[in-house]
Amino acid sequence: MDSSLISNGCNPVDFEVFKFRTDQKPVRMSSFAEMFNGGSHMSKKDDNGTVERWARWELELKGPDGGNPFLDNTLEAVFTMNGENQTARGFYDGDGTYRIRFMPNRVGRWSYTVASTMMAVDGLTGSFECVEPSAGNHGPVRVANTFHFAYEDGSRYIPVGTTCYAWTHQPPALEEKTLSTLGKSAFNKIRMCVFPKYYDFNHDEPELFPFEGSLSQGWDFTRFNPAFFRHLETRIDALQRLGVEADLILFHPYDHWGFSLMPAEIDDRYLRYIVARLSAYRNVWWSLANEYDLFTTKTVADWERIAGVIMESDAYGHLRSIHNCHGFYDHRKDWITHCSIQRTDVYKTSEMTAEWRDAFRKPIVIDECAYEGNINLGWGNITGFEMVRRFWEGFVRGGYVGHGETFLNPEEILWWSKGGSLRGESPKRIAFLRTVMEEGPDEGITPISFGNEGWDLPCGGVENSYYLFYFGFNQPSFRTFRMPENQAYRVDVIDTWNMKISALKGERSGNFRIELPGKPYMAVRMRRVR
Amino acid sequence: MDSSLISNGCNPVDFEVFKFRTDQKPVRMSSFAEMFNGGSHMSKKDDNGTVERWARWELELKGPDGGNPFLDNTLEAVFTMNGENQTARGFYDGDGTYRIRFMPNRVGRWSYTVASTMMAVDGLTGSFECVEPSAGNHGPVRVANTFHFAYEDGSRYIPVGTTCYAWTHQPPALEEKTLSTLGKSAFNKIRMCVFPKYYDFNHDEPELFPFEGSLSQGWDFTRFNPAFFRHLETRIDALQRLGVEADLILFHPYDHWGFSLMPAEIDDRYLRYIVARLSAYRNVWWSLANEYDLFTTKTVADWERIAGVIMESDAYGHLRSIHNCHGFYDHRKDWITHCSIQRTDVYKTSEMTAEWRDAFRKPIVIDECAYEGNINLGWGNITGFEMVRRFWEGFVRGGYVGHGETFLNPEEILWWSKGGSLRGESPKRIAFLRTVMEEGPDEGITPISFGNEGWDLPCGGVENSYYLFYFGFNQPSFRTFRMPENQAYRVDVIDTWNMKISALKGERSGNFRIELPGKPYMAVRMRRVR
Repeated sequence: MDSSLISNGCNPVDFEVFKFRTDQKPVRMSSFAEMFNGGSHMSKKDDNGTVERWARWELELKGPDGGNPFLDNTLEAVFTMNGENQTARGFYDGDGTYRIRFMPNRVGRWSYTVASTMMAVDGLTGSFECVEPSAGNHGPVRVANTFHFAYEDGSRYIPVGTTCYAWTHQPPALEEKTLSTLGKSAFNKIRMCVFPKYYDFNHDEPELFPFEGSLSQGWDFTRFNPAFFRHLETRIDALQRLGVEADLILFHPYDHWGFSLMPAEIDDRYLRYIVARLSAYRNVWWSLANEYDLFTTKTVADWERIAGVIMESDAYGHLRSIHNCHGFYDHRKDWITHCSIQRTDVYKTSEMTAEWRDAFRKPIVIDECAYEGNINLGWGNITGFEMVRRFWEGFVRGGYVGHGETFLNPEEILWWSKGGSLRGESPKRIAFLRTVMEEGPDEGITPISFGNEGWDLPCGGVENSYYLFYFGFNQPSFRTFRMPENQAYRVDVIDTWNMKISALKGERSGNFRIELPGKPYMAVRMRRVR
Repeated sequence: MDSSLISNGCNPVDFEVFKFRTDQKPVRMSSFAEMFNGGSHMSKKDDNGTVERWARWELELKGPDGGNPFLDNTLEAVFTMNGENQTARGFYDGDGTYRIRFMPNRVGRWSYTVASTMMAVDGLTGSFECVEPSAGNHGPVRVANTFHFAYEDGSRYIPVGTTCYAWTHQPPALEEKTLSTLGKSAFNKIRMCVFPKYYDFNHDEPELFPFEGSLSQGWDFTRFNPAFFRHLETRIDALQRLGVEADLILFHPYDHWGFSLMPAEIDDRYLRYIVARLSAYRNVWWSLANEYDLFTTKTVADWERIAGVIMESDAYGHLRSIHNCHGFYDHRKDWITHCSIQRTDVYKTSEMTAEWRDAFRKPIVIDECAYEGNINLGWGNITGFEMVRRFWEGFVRGGYVGHGETFLNPEEILWWSKGGSLRGESPKRIAFLRTVMEEGPDEGITPISFGNEGWDLPCGGVENSYYLFYFGFNQPSFRTFRMPENQAYRVDVIDTWNMKISALKGERSGNFRIELPGKPYMAVRMRRVR
């Protein structure tokens, strides 16, 4: 939290400033009470103001709309239960409407007190009941077991991500199509940009922009466009209904509007605004940048400052990452919760997962290992075979690989950017892999070394319990294994491309040989039975 | 040359030793003259003692066969033309027969003088005529243009290698089959071991061994088995007839006879013996070791000593290399003519060629990028697709990749070791690549960088003249190119897997777009026309 804001709400001098800046008549308390509309969004709520755990409770207030409410008025609330406080910053949503959103993380009766430069609401109090979450609501995703993830309720979250950078800047029918496609897919995370995108195959102007103004007339960076953000929010809510995490890219360089070139002051105001709006959405992750190293006007010091603004604004500690082009950001930084990686080599990508785990001691999410497709550039024209191979190579090494798709089509609707339909061969194989992942150990996959014997065969799992070997593009017709004599395993031979699991009869112990079909993309799974 | 040998021939004390050791009556000069049989082997020769350039001239002498002729007698000859001398060491070939072989590198009349501890031949002189080489005889292979090769007559040599480690230790019919297969292939270099091989899929005992003795009775390392070497020589000659260079591996660790564990003195005697026998074979290359770093009893100092013995014994300067398992030998050493590389990474192999060129400034020959096949281990079970891809990746970066094949079969005759038949899908695609190589620039391929534009598309050729782009596993449906406006190129789209070259109509200049089929393993070739 920005502690200066809290005191502002109680400071008569600032209140004077409020009056001066907004030229607004003081609003009587009674009128606020009439306009009060507390409740949760996107979750069960009753008329008495109940909200389920990790759902969004929202306080709507009417207030001044003159002057520049984005600059002139501050608003926040302290939420309290059992003597513990959490502070949530409010925001101006246009048309004289102010909102404070809150995501309660504990069940019970919460009370709140509003603090604002707007005298009439300063000191406003109330309470509501937080109840158990409904089915499918597991809370926000957290890092678990150093290299993995779990929802806040402790249930596993296995990221199976895809990328549609600009899907929320498309015509409504296309956005709905994207959601429909996602709903039928195995993807449970999507990388998406807040700002619109200007790049190859992406030269349409979007309907909505985040600031008032226009490309031709210039932008008023002091005034946000609430309609833009409300639209984004409907899409994030739709993702939440599908069980998809929104890995929200706060800055990106594919820009001709100037949003990648804003000065620090504007950046910071934007960050505080979007965090105020979105941090109560439990499925939001903060990706500070796509390809941070392609920004011409931002230094590492800028990114560190930006991270700081998010850290102090986001009361909930949503996941935070920063994604590279040429070379990694220093993922050892404390504020980085997990590594969001773009491969730095054309040939060797997710095969580096174990080394990256060792280097950063955080979850390895390879958001860009290249995309399945057929466009001109190497990051967007790998085969389905290669995409699926990279997923498996990463997974058996204890990491998580992300998908994207770039098939040319006459409409120039490429999934990686605009969403729409999936055309590739990898998504259904990735869905198959997800089932294998879900059948795997709850604690996640750890790379397992078999010394010299295993130099050519990556393995991940849990020692003495679960082993998953992946042969990749190699095509052995058999393989020998050396397991402890006093342990017995059930063995499955998995054809990762044809999505078939062949369970071998009986159990295996000690040294044994497994016959294989002499074709690529095979895996062997061993699960201990005694 | 070992200069001590030269003086030995003229030293009465050593002569006394000879007499003592061999207990042999002095042989009269006249009897040597009768037995004289100078001439060339494997090339045209007339009765007057003519030999073509780079063919093998041989002097056969009869001498003592008592004692241990391998130890007791030294023999060499100095060959002279126009005041320039070359010395060739002779060797004992069993049954009282001694030989001196010589490969003349210039046309004209050569004279020679024998020096020996055998008094009766010491001082023997003679001469012969060296004539122009016949068609197909281009001399030994040399390094050319830093990173490439040429025969000594200046014609290009483009190595297209394969591996049959133990093919000369097989039954005669199988050896003939191997030669027949090679004759129908595009391979023009073969890696092969002098010593027999003991390893997976290779546990047969060979017919011949290099030393007298046996595995059960032990070896007399002081006595070579000439029959073993004569057999090897017939095979090297057969390779020469096929235009195949014999990349002869002098030591290897796949051994249960002890040949990899011999002490330095035995190693050195073996080296001098084999160099004396084989250095006049123009198609011999010296590979000091396969997987030098797997020898338990040899240090880098040993390998350096071994290199020194070869350097001083081989009057012709045949190509010399040393091949690794885990990590490279220091290929910057002066005695190493070219890098014989085994890939050190399972995934990224020939894609490293340009970096290795920069590091070593020598030809990059990736003798082991893994083998096409289906055995259990990762070095022996890549697909034909992957093998061919590695060939192309290496070639466009200015290097040369080698082939091998390891398909299981009931007879356990795997090409990589025993030879026989080829079963894989890569050899005919490698033959196709060889035609593309041969149509390429005489000076060889240099990696060409297109800066940021080319990060995903390796290119090799000669700037402003010839460009070969290779897309590998990427599958673009088009690509744009940026060539100089004032140059015109003919453009071919090459399907490297289906072995089809599609010449585009007309010429291209400046910026242009090439349509591609959106599948992997495509190349684009541009040849300047004006």
